[in-house]
Amino acid sequence: MSCPLALTTDGSALYGCGACLWSVGKGRRGRIAGSRDSFRLIKTSSDSGARAGELLTPHGSVPTPVFLPVGSQGTVKTVTPGDLESIGVKMVLANAYHLFLRPGVDVIERIGGLHRFMGWDGAVLTDSGGYQIFSLAGLRKVTDRGVVFRSHIDGSQHYITPELAIEIQESLGADVIMVLDDVPSSTGSFEEVQQAMERTHVWAERCLRARSAGDRILFAIVQGGLFPELRHRSAAYLTSLGFSGYAVGGLSLGEPKAQTRAMVGETAALLPEDRPRYLMGVGSPDDIVDAVGAGIDMFDSVLPTRVARNGTLLTWQGRCHIRNSAYREMESPVDPDCNCYTCRHFSAAYLHHLFRCEELLAYRLATVHNLSFMSALMDGIRRAVMDGTFNSFEESFRAGYQPTEEKVRLAQKRKWLDARDRRMMIQDE
Amino acid sequence: MSCPLALTTDGSALYGCGACLWSVGKGRRGRIAGSRDSFRLIKTSSDSGARAGELLTPHGSVPTPVFLPVGSQGTVKTVTPGDLESIGVKMVLANAYHLFLRPGVDVIERIGGLHRFMGWDGAVLTDSGGYQIFSLAGLRKVTDRGVVFRSHIDGSQHYITPELAIEIQESLGADVIMVLDDVPSSTGSFEEVQQAMERTHVWAERCLRARSAGDRILFAIVQGGLFPELRHRSAAYLTSLGFSGYAVGGLSLGEPKAQTRAMVGETAALLPEDRPRYLMGVGSPDDIVDAVGAGIDMFDSVLPTRVARNGTLLTWQGRCHIRNSAYREMESPVDPDCNCYTCRHFSAAYLHHLFRCEELLAYRLATVHNLSFMSALMDGIRRAVMDGTFNSFEESFRAGYQPTEEKVRLAQKRKWLDARDRRMMIQDE
Repeated sequence: MSCPLALTTDGSALYGCGACLWSVGKGRRGRIAGSRDSFRLIKTSSDSGARAGELLTPHGSVPTPVFLPVGSQGTVKTVTPGDLESIGVKMVLANAYHLFLRPGVDVIERIGGLHRFMGWDGAVLTDSGGYQIFSLAGLRKVTDRGVVFRSHIDGSQHYITPELAIEIQESLGADVIMVLDDVPSSTGSFEEVQQAMERTHVWAERCLRARSAGDRILFAIVQGGLFPELRHRSAAYLTSLGFSGYAVGGLSLGEPKAQTRAMVGETAALLPEDRPRYLMGVGSPDDIVDAVGAGIDMFDSVLPTRVARNGTLLTWQGRCHIRNSAYREMESPVDPDCNCYTCRHFSAAYLHHLFRCEELLAYRLATVHNLSFMSALMDGIRRAVMDGTFNSFEESFRAGYQPTEEKVRLAQKRKWLDARDRRMMIQDE
Repeated sequence: MSCPLALTTDGSALYGCGACLWSVGKGRRGRIAGSRDSFRLIKTSSDSGARAGELLTPHGSVPTPVFLPVGSQGTVKTVTPGDLESIGVKMVLANAYHLFLRPGVDVIERIGGLHRFMGWDGAVLTDSGGYQIFSLAGLRKVTDRGVVFRSHIDGSQHYITPELAIEIQESLGADVIMVLDDVPSSTGSFEEVQQAMERTHVWAERCLRARSAGDRILFAIVQGGLFPELRHRSAAYLTSLGFSGYAVGGLSLGEPKAQTRAMVGETAALLPEDRPRYLMGVGSPDDIVDAVGAGIDMFDSVLPTRVARNGTLLTWQGRCHIRNSAYREMESPVDPDCNCYTCRHFSAAYLHHLFRCEELLAYRLATVHNLSFMSALMDGIRRAVMDGTFNSFEESFRAGYQPTEEKVRLAQKRKWLDARDRRMMIQDE
């Protein structure tokens, strides 16, 4: 449902959104419950920061490290819940911002919650929409109290507060929910990033208070941009409040990889051992292996699904561009060692043909392959941590995997962000 | 493979296409074999022309009446062979014209034939491409010997003869293959239609002679436009040659339904009882019920898959437009009585949401539903024929089913044909 509330011109006079169906008092607030045991750390690598664990959600246990496919609008693009299950996916990400705007929280509640709406029995994490509001929506006014923004779909005006962000996610019925955060630009000054961080802290505390009793798992989001000092302060403050998990936000936004790595290392080391650590928006295989070594447990990114739709298939050797004429007559599958539905049933030549014809099946088969690769990658990582061989896994991974060149990667990221700015490729952000 | 042969300017000096990999002598020609027993008529309705039978192909037996989903480019748009199997599909149509141009017959042969290329173990009928050459390609010159045309994809020039049309289809490895026909415009004069029909006859005879030994089933195509006299002559001539099956071509091209019906009735009555009868390009549920009553056994059409991608779902009550806001909050599936994957797993509200978001999964779920509906329709028809209750089936179908208004239908068909002319919606013709 779009918020039917007519706002004052500058939005400043409003606080809360009482007219919206989903915003009136549901559940009891102010109690923190049921989340202390939502994570079980099973093993820590002796020769790196890598960990193996288990996230315990109302929709099943999720072995970590885990990669979450992105289904912003209540669908992981091109695939069914059945496909996801076959691939071995246990948890997906959906986006409260998108679902709030369309179809509206009231619709999803009426159908019986997000799981039922999507036909998905596994776990769901919802992003609060902070990132989308600050990057996607027409931003009108941010105060410590909340944000007035315009929908990227129809320009309608909405007001969101930390309390509302929690209520929306609870109404959707997500298993893991995220605080509303103020996401600064990756090129912001120290003062700008500091201000956004401080607001994120105030909002995080309000989210914690706003939370209903129940078994939903609430994560805070550490901000602080590329400034180690701010990352330290953010981690220290948020961990002092006691959340069920901690995300590292505001990274992988176009900055050089070395900086992302440094910040992930800095931040992960500051987070409590007994809580899950989630690096938001990171999804290239080499970055994931790296971040697992730094102690990260959870990841999400549109990368595997988006590059799939562009004809880029992930393999243990690196990315393979199936539109390339080298695949025109290739009888073997894209990756002969891959056990996914696509590689078991189709030649590289067939995939090449489907992409050249722009057949819709192309996008689905490539998505199935890439998500299967991510699943196999995470399984491999986890097994290695459990066996105490993560370092040699990493070495052998790096020996085989040709990462995308930094220049190409940055150009691609810039293209995505520009396209998003032009409101084009927004749908799976 | 694109034909690499450089043609003379008017193409007239050429006959055959010796330079193409796929055109040099494969198999023995001139023998007709193995096809006499490719159809078994099991039951004829006592109160109508409706028949139940079985088409016996190298890739399994196909109960008739049957509807063939269209997979012109070697894929039924949006669905996998596994999806088709789950739906109960036993046979699909692919298009020799499209596959000849892309990826090229050599590629498909190298991969092991069309079945292996597509990952499809069921039966395949290939259309020769006559319709596409005459409607889609840039037409250069038609003589009794063959056609020179330009590819709609890249403008490259190709020369096709009846012999080549057969060889292409045999090389693809189709189970049922079609003669090359000269398809006149549905608004052509008597003389124009007569000329095209006579050429179709000459070509049909050459196709019959060109055919290799083997168990491929060759169908002739009765032409004659909307002129009963020509339909009679065409049916008489072609049946005198002795084909394994007979198609009725050149209908459902934008003419009023009453005319289509009259021509189908005229033509079907002239075809031998012991051979399958195939009405090309017809696919709306009400037209199919009608044509079965006239004695037709096989159908193909892009209609169910194309309208699916447009958000139109077929039900026993008629077409349902899922983008309509009436479905925004509908908790039940589109058709509560439907047992397809889509209706078993998702609410109408979810489908509505996917279409509104233009999510690729929408097109797939709608396609699965529509093909499942077609499958259920054909099953119902066949059961009724077997039980001797086709007339009451038809009555009850018509009592429930609201056909698309003639005006809307003609406008839609015109839109499709226009779009095709603009080279836009060509991909599943």
